[in-house]
Parts: sequence; structure tokens; C-alpha cells
Amino acid sequence: MCMFEDCKGGVTAPQGFQSAGIHCGIKKAKKDLALIYSSVPANAAAVFTTSKVQAAPILVNKLQMKRSSRCRAIIVNSGNANACTGERGLNDAWEMVNATAHALNIPEEEILVSSTGVIGQYLPLSRIQFGIPEVVKALSDEGNLAAAEAIMTTDTFSKETALRFELEGKQATIGGMAKGSGMIAPNMATMLGFLTSDVNIHPTLLQKALKQATDRSFNRISVDGDTSTNDMVTILANGLAENDEIVDESDSAYQLFYEALEVVCVKLSKMIVVDGEGATKFVEVQVQGAASEQQAVQAAKAIANSNLVKTAIHGEDANWGRILAAIGYSGIEFTPKDVEIFFGDVPILRQNYVINFSEQAAKKILMQKEIIITVDLHQGNESASFWTCDLSKEYVAINANYRT
Amino acid sequence: MCMFEDCKGGVTAPQGFQSAGIHCGIKKAKKDLALIYSSVPANAAAVFTTSKVQAAPILVNKLQMKRSSRCRAIIVNSGNANACTGERGLNDAWEMVNATAHALNIPEEEILVSSTGVIGQYLPLSRIQFGIPEVVKALSDEGNLAAAEAIMTTDTFSKETALRFELEGKQATIGGMAKGSGMIAPNMATMLGFLTSDVNIHPTLLQKALKQATDRSFNRISVDGDTSTNDMVTILANGLAENDEIVDESDSAYQLFYEALEVVCVKLSKMIVVDGEGATKFVEVQVQGAASEQQAVQAAKAIANSNLVKTAIHGEDANWGRILAAIGYSGIEFTPKDVEIFFGDVPILRQNYVINFSEQAAKKILMQKEIIITVDLHQGNESASFWTCDLSKEYVAINANYRT
Repeated sequence: MCMFEDCKGGVTAPQGFQSAGIHCGIKKAKKDLALIYSSVPANAAAVFTTSKVQAAPILVNKLQMKRSSRCRAIIVNSGNANACTGERGLNDAWEMVNATAHALNIPEEEILVSSTGVIGQYLPLSRIQFGIPEVVKALSDEGNLAAAEAIMTTDTFSKETALRFELEGKQATIGGMAKGSGMIAPNMATMLGFLTSDVNIHPTLLQKALKQATDRSFNRISVDGDTSTNDMVTILANGLAENDEIVDESDSAYQLFYEALEVVCVKLSKMIVVDGEGATKFVEVQVQGAASEQQAVQAAKAIANSNLVKTAIHGEDANWGRILAAIGYSGIEFTPKDVEIFFGDVPILRQNYVINFSEQAAKKILMQKEIIITVDLHQGNESASFWTCDLSKEYVAINANYRT
Repeated sequence: MCMFEDCKGGVTAPQGFQSAGIHCGIKKAKKDLALIYSSVPANAAAVFTTSKVQAAPILVNKLQMKRSSRCRAIIVNSGNANACTGERGLNDAWEMVNATAHALNIPEEEILVSSTGVIGQYLPLSRIQFGIPEVVKALSDEGNLAAAEAIMTTDTFSKETALRFELEGKQATIGGMAKGSGMIAPNMATMLGFLTSDVNIHPTLLQKALKQATDRSFNRISVDGDTSTNDMVTILANGLAENDEIVDESDSAYQLFYEALEVVCVKLSKMIVVDGEGATKFVEVQVQGAASEQQAVQAAKAIANSNLVKTAIHGEDANWGRILAAIGYSGIEFTPKDVEIFFGDVPILRQNYVINFSEQAAKKILMQKEIIITVDLHQGNESASFWTCDLSKEYVAINANYRT
């Protein structure tokens, strides 16, 4: 039954990919420069932050994607976001692209760039320029973990995954790494996801698949509801699996590729939530019985973003009133008395506001590390999940004193 | 210069109003039943929660306002929100109206009803029915403080104010009381504001004035961004000041009345923020140079609602990056490099991302109990203020353990 098999190797799991992560001197001692490299030009797709305040590398990548949908390398630094740095910041981002093109001896338009870290400070460009030939030298088939470490900011663990599946008789692989989390550390510029694949797929469909998978994974997690200046998710697909190029959305090969991609993205997204600042519990909010997927997402997001719901879960309190109140202000159309709410398999609120649950049974669910809250709106047949964590005193402590 | 003079008396400051607050047995020992009464029928206006989950008294009041724009009494209980209580809850709210009409010997349609407290439990109706004749007996010109106390839930102090001004040669007064705060305590059903006045004003204009004043005060405060099932703000204006009825919006008497009303509403709103759960600092976010008032509000609200901004202020950290990031995702149109940010009178971010401030000077501002953050978007001439508080560990502690 299981079409997808987990495998090792992260971003280097698909054929033809190498990566590396080194310390170049932006941070005091930790790795701070990562490189992903494909031995042949790959089709590229990308999704960027919707914030009006966009960091220099985001602006550069948007131009790069217009110049060419082919890409061979992504250079990423951590420790400095190169955001709110004006003209000089833009020049610095282009210099990172240039230095990488030169060191790899490939065209400039085949390179994407990413930065994460403190906002409003100029990049220590000479250190990065010195580091780029070093990170190129370090490229290897086993460089995935070093790369995943080099993109970390306040993350407490590195995040990578990969899976393998059969695609029209060929072995296909999708790998990925990420850093978190949704404005987990605000001054640190946030959520990055880098995906690789050896699948042969037309760039238009690759973009479509990435957008949809991102909407159903990275865009359905919440640590504190804030959005950053540097968020981006990219995928490179180099075609070395040698399947016939996927060119039709209705093709079963596209469906299979999409499903695999969504699985990878959801896995990385959940890791980001688990690593949420101060998080002690992982929470999945499942809204079902919605009139549309959009309404399900809207309701689930309101619940997952509510400080009151998140503190109640931290306090292991079966506070269904806060959940219903959050749906109430989410903006969706529904009939409050029709709503049912479950914590795990314990029904907390039944239709017509019937409440008849054992506090003990509810407490037992809430004491767990992973909690599933299910809301049935009884308005239709659509559903959506959203992933979040509890809100702890630790979150306040981390964020009150982050910059200094 | 000062047209408005603060005065004592809260909701009983205007002519012809009495009030009372007693303990009827919903709460263990504290006052839990309040009544506001006008000796003559008053024009009434009201603004209700926009949540789709609306408590029984909200539904009853909407019908009552359709039946008659005249009102003489408002009965309010605390300790139980009568929300998510279905048909029985609706009947209970009507029973409160009936009992009040009977005890005061006035028509049922001249009564409004309000509840605040725990969600999802039926009212202890017989205690309230027993209490209503008692609270009627207790009505007095000096009953304002008792009434303001009787509507409190997790509030740590009662909130009332009143002001006097000359209106076309007559002495006019507006009084008010409120309980907080913006989903300060979620299960406790939230923000209530009760205003009284002796001004003679047409009900259509009264409604217009209340809506606008509420939009610029109660709708511009944020403790945690959540919205409740029971929120309402009402005003009764009984005309005993004997000014000529205000019937024209362009009339200077309307302008004066509106300004006074906004002052009262803003005062009560600020009290609610100061009493925010776990709040240690009061923060005014002023956005100026916006293309429209709506855009100014939208930007100010995003800043005021950001957990990251609120924790930074708690940590006394001049973290302008979080403020700029919040404007970035607020959805307004602006040019990031044009933005200037001030903490108090200290410029933190100048145009073109120029940062040149003394950490010491910024810290001195941030150590104060009241902090003004000014953002100049340089996009136009419109402005708006939003009021909020910091996010402390204490907030998490209160809300993690509230229900139990």
C-alpha cells in the first residue's frame, strides 16, 4: 500500500545533487554558509514571502526566476538576513550570486540566493566571498546534514527528510531541508525550505505543484502568526530519474509526484512546529465538514493562531469555548450550534451545545505531547489541517530577549 | 481651550440616570448583577460583536433594538456569559428582560440585557430573578461604582469615567463604564461598554456617533487579538439636558457631542488595555503619513497584535525589525525604505534604513510604563492610533489556568 519510502540523504538523496555547509565567520562558531548543487541544470520553482517588506535575496531571486527557469545552485547564509539593507543589500546579494557562479564556473542566471538572520545589518560580504570557494570545495554526496545545519538560526535541531517512489518504472526521489519557524525568531528571518528532486517535470507544472504543496504545508503552520521578510521555498528538479517529462496535470505521474512532494513538505512543516520557540506540545487542528477547503483552512488557522487556545493547551485545559470563539471570528459562515469538537477521540462539544465529557479523559489527551483537535462544522464535506504548538512562558522569555 | 471637564459619577453623572450593583449569587461573594436606569425613556444605540458565535443576550438585544429605539434600563450579570446555551439560553435572556420590566413597571421593549462570564453554562436564572427586584430597590444616583464593580470578571479594577461640556448654552454630560478586555479572558465573555448621556439627539445620529466612536476606541485596542461572543457597547441618551434635538450631522452641536463621546470611549478603552492580563506596559501605536485612515488602522493593528512586537516591548528591546515586518504583512501598500519609526521622541529608523540611535536613549523610553511608538509611512496625510500592552509570562500563566 505504501507508495513512498523514507530514505536518508536529505537534499542529496535525489540523483545528481551535492551539498555542503561550512563556517565562514558570520556567526561566532557555528556553520553559516550552505550550498546545494545539481550536476546538471535543473528546472526551478519558488514561492516567496507575501510580505511587502522583502529582503534583498528575495528581490534578486524574483529577477533570477524571470531570467531563467533553470537553476543549478542555491547559496544560503545564516546569521544575517540581508533585509532592510537598501541598495547596498541588493548589491551584496548579487555579489553572492557572482561569487558562486565564479567558483562553480556556471552561468550567473543559474543561481539562487537566500539569507536568514538579523534584520537591518549589512552582510559581512568579504567573509562570505572568502567562504564561497570553500563551500564549493566541500560539496559532497553526504553534505546534506552539514547544509541543513548551516541554515539554522534559533532552531534547536536540523530539519531534513527524503523519500523515494516508483514513477513509471523509474526510481524517483524528493529530498528537502528547512529551517524554522513561522516567525519563530522575528529578527531572524524565518522560514526557509529547500527541496530537490531527480524527477523530470516541466517547469510550469513544477511551479504549480510547489505552490499547492506549500499552501497545504508551510502555509498551514503557525508558531506565532507573524510572517517574515525572507520566507522562501524552492525546488530544483534535474530530471536524472529519466522518467518521460511530466507535461500534463491530469497525468497520473503528476498526481504521484505531487503527492510525494506534499508528504515531504508536510514532514518538514511539522518539524518546524515541533521546534517552535518554547513549544512543549505539537497540535494538529483538523477542521472537517466545511463548505469549502478555503473555509476549513480559515477556521483551522484562526484556532491555531489564537493565543487563548494555545495557552489553554499549554495549561492542559479542555477549553472548547476558546475554540468555538476563534471559529466565530474567523470570518467563515457556519451555524454555531451544529459544531462538534473532539480532543483526540474524546468528544468535548456535541451538536446543540451538548457537553458531556469526562474531565479525566480530556486531561489524559491534553497531557500528551501530540494533540489532535478535531472540529466538525457540519456545513459540507471539505476539510483541512493546520499545525501549531502551545504558547508557553518560555516563548515570551525567548522573544523578550532575543535581539540583545 | 478645554471644552470638556472630567466629572464624577460614571454612568449616573448625566441627569436622570440611576444605577446599582448587587450580589445575587452567580459568583461566590462578589457583586454580579448591575442595573442602569433612566427616569425617562432614552434614545438607544448599540454596537455588537461581529463574531458568528453570538451569546443569547446579543441576539435578544438585536431584536429589542428593532422593536424600539427607546430604552430605559439595562440589566447586566457577570459570572456567566449565557453563550453557547441554545434555546434555553435565549429563554433565560428573555426572562431577565421580563423580570426587569416587571420590577421597574416599564414596557419590556425598553430593556436591554447583557451577560459576561463563563461560556457554555446555563444561567442560574432563579438567583437572577430573585436579584432583579433587589437591584431595582438599590438604584441610586450614587450607584455608579457598585454597577461598575458588578460587571467585572477578571478585571483588577472597575472602569468608569464621565465628562461635562456646554452644548448650546446647556450643561451636557456623558458617562460610561466598561469591563475588559479584548478577549482578556476568553471564557469570560469579554468587552462591555455602557454609556449614558442627557443630550437630546436623534437615534439615527446617536447610532452613527456610537459606531464611529467605537471604531476609534474599543475597536482600536488589543490585548491578544481575540474577539468574544458577548462584546457590546451601548449608549442611552435621555434628552434631559434640554438642548434642541440634534438632527443634523453637519451641526456643530453634533460635532461637539461626537468629540465628547470619542473622548469618553477612548478613556475607557485605555483603562481596559492598562488592565490587560499580565500587562506591565501600556503601548500607544501611532501610525501617521498613511494614504488613508483605514490603512493607518490596518498597519497600527498589525503592530499592536504582533506577539513579537509585544514580547520585545516586554523585554525593553528597541526591535524595529519586528515593527517593520508587521507592517509588511499588514496588507497595506507602502514603500518600506520610506518608513520612519520612533520610540517616544527617539528616532530609531530613519528613511532609507538609516539606523543611528543611542541604545541608552531607546532603553530609557522602553523602561517607562507608558510607551508611544510612532510610525511615519510617508505615503500620505492620514493617521490613526491603536492601544495595546506588552505580552508577559504572566499572560501565559493567567490564560493557561483560567478555566480550572
